[in-house]
Amino acid sequence: MAVPLAVSMGDPAGIGPEIAAKAWAARDDERLSPFAMIGDPAALRAVWGGPVEVVASLSDAAAVFARALPVLAVGEAGPVQPGAPTEAGARAALLALARATDLVLDGAARALVTGPVAKAQLYAIGFDAPGQTEYVADRCGMARADAVMMLAGPTLRVVPITGHVPLADVPRLLTRGLIVAKGRATAAGLARDFGIAAPRLAFAGLNPHAGESGTIGGEEIAAMVPAIATLRDEGIDAHGPFAADTLFHPRARARWDAILCPYHDQALIPLKTIHFDEGVNITLGLPIVRTSPDHGTAFGIAGQNAADPGAMIAAIRMSDEAAARRAA
Amino acid sequence: MAVPLAVSMGDPAGIGPEIAAKAWAARDDERLSPFAMIGDPAALRAVWGGPVEVVASLSDAAAVFARALPVLAVGEAGPVQPGAPTEAGARAALLALARATDLVLDGAARALVTGPVAKAQLYAIGFDAPGQTEYVADRCGMARADAVMMLAGPTLRVVPITGHVPLADVPRLLTRGLIVAKGRATAAGLARDFGIAAPRLAFAGLNPHAGESGTIGGEEIAAMVPAIATLRDEGIDAHGPFAADTLFHPRARARWDAILCPYHDQALIPLKTIHFDEGVNITLGLPIVRTSPDHGTAFGIAGQNAADPGAMIAAIRMSDEAAARRAA
Repeated sequence: MAVPLAVSMGDPAGIGPEIAAKAWAARDDERLSPFAMIGDPAALRAVWGGPVEVVASLSDAAAVFARALPVLAVGEAGPVQPGAPTEAGARAALLALARATDLVLDGAARALVTGPVAKAQLYAIGFDAPGQTEYVADRCGMARADAVMMLAGPTLRVVPITGHVPLADVPRLLTRGLIVAKGRATAAGLARDFGIAAPRLAFAGLNPHAGESGTIGGEEIAAMVPAIATLRDEGIDAHGPFAADTLFHPRARARWDAILCPYHDQALIPLKTIHFDEGVNITLGLPIVRTSPDHGTAFGIAGQNAADPGAMIAAIRMSDEAAARRAA
Repeated sequence: MAVPLAVSMGDPAGIGPEIAAKAWAARDDERLSPFAMIGDPAALRAVWGGPVEVVASLSDAAAVFARALPVLAVGEAGPVQPGAPTEAGARAALLALARATDLVLDGAARALVTGPVAKAQLYAIGFDAPGQTEYVADRCGMARADAVMMLAGPTLRVVPITGHVPLADVPRLLTRGLIVAKGRATAAGLARDFGIAAPRLAFAGLNPHAGESGTIGGEEIAAMVPAIATLRDEGIDAHGPFAADTLFHPRARARWDAILCPYHDQALIPLKTIHFDEGVNITLGLPIVRTSPDHGTAFGIAGQNAADPGAMIAAIRMSDEAAARRAA
């Protein structure tokens, strides 16, 4: 029987269960491969009246998928009130994430798709990773620095070189070594998971107008230019640094397979401006394929049947395609 | 006779003359009010074969406008090779900018539209302002800090709170006083030049996720929250700070009349991503109306008849409408 994808439920009080259920409901129109939800089936039933079947093993999921959303029961969220996260819910979400990751590592699932979690609640129960990306890297036995977050929409892929850090820290963190490492991992990941043999990479400059030859900041000349030269010496088709504000309009972004940006907002602003409801977060460099819808728990609309499943559907499809490429 | 708008030529080796001429050629389709170019007519003829008439006074321009592009001859650029800027060209561009500004201050022109200049060449001849915005403020006898740059496209207006400064300097420059001053000037400018009596202003946070309650940087709590409170106390409909990456998708940006961003790329990336060929730079807070196409000299395509006049046409229309509102 076909091996399914594993979708972790995410925080039960968020929109994770709803968008996974809506993705299942759209499985024929969207031609989605079989997947199973990993999490508390009671939390799913609290927000969705469609068919659910608890499976004892993921090997049963593909057969169930045609008639019901298969759920592997993991964790107990307790009473669920959509929009009101609890510590019990966070514990259930974390158990689901751990189990879903292990199922992919063990080969029982083809790829991991993670539902959105609430970090404040996770921190309250002792979670010590900056986010799910680093948690999954830890669980895979990888260095966190080698797990690269890429955000992908239909017409744009971006990689933030630094993450959830204060903007004031970015100039110091943006070292030549970090830039080279992210460039290498991005190129390798695009080849491995997207089948792009010689990806074209652009780097955005840190400063306005990419520093205008050093007159508006020196980080481009000190760190970025030599890092890009190193990548090119290694045979990677890397270019820049370019003025960030000129890189993302339709003609500009069509020239690149991915655009690497020194900091969070430089990458996330254009991606979410043009692909807000369809952005996918994919982690490059892991031994497993892992994607996620590029949005949060959206507590404000949870339980109202108002969530758009577009990004979850795109995340499921991207993980499916990447897993197929790795298996080929 | 109708008072025309004044369009300064910009650098003669850039696309400024070409896009002004193309705007004139499109005057009927675009229903543009009469304007005159201020600059060297020989530089215009070097790149354009259409009808040009040198006028002795702007009072003649409106009558000429129906049959030819009126030019008030100012400066001598010398031999012009498109794409190859010269110091003589920069001198001519600066003379044109100065004269065009004075014509508006004197009431001989209704508003100022500035063509793109080359800063490197201007600096070489002693220009000491960061850009045309500050130069015009100086010439109007205003404090530079009170001249606020707003970038406007059909579905988005943004104000960068800091300008062409290294990113590393932004956290220090982002004071409560600066945020309040920019908020006040933006609200006043939207009322005066756009007829929006009670503009809705959003502020983007400096840090990722607007600092997540202080866990990713403290500037939101230290400077931005109190500044926004001050603006609200003054009756300005100011909101935020919000996570910058969630502010610019179509549903989000429709909620605001302008979005103020702590630094250059936060404002310019979304504007140019969605309105690359139609963005207008308007200076709020001046005694005169001044707009500009939101792009540079584009030396790489100058002289090839390849420049898109969309942003120049939009700049002419916006200055026309703002001047009409001030006169009403």
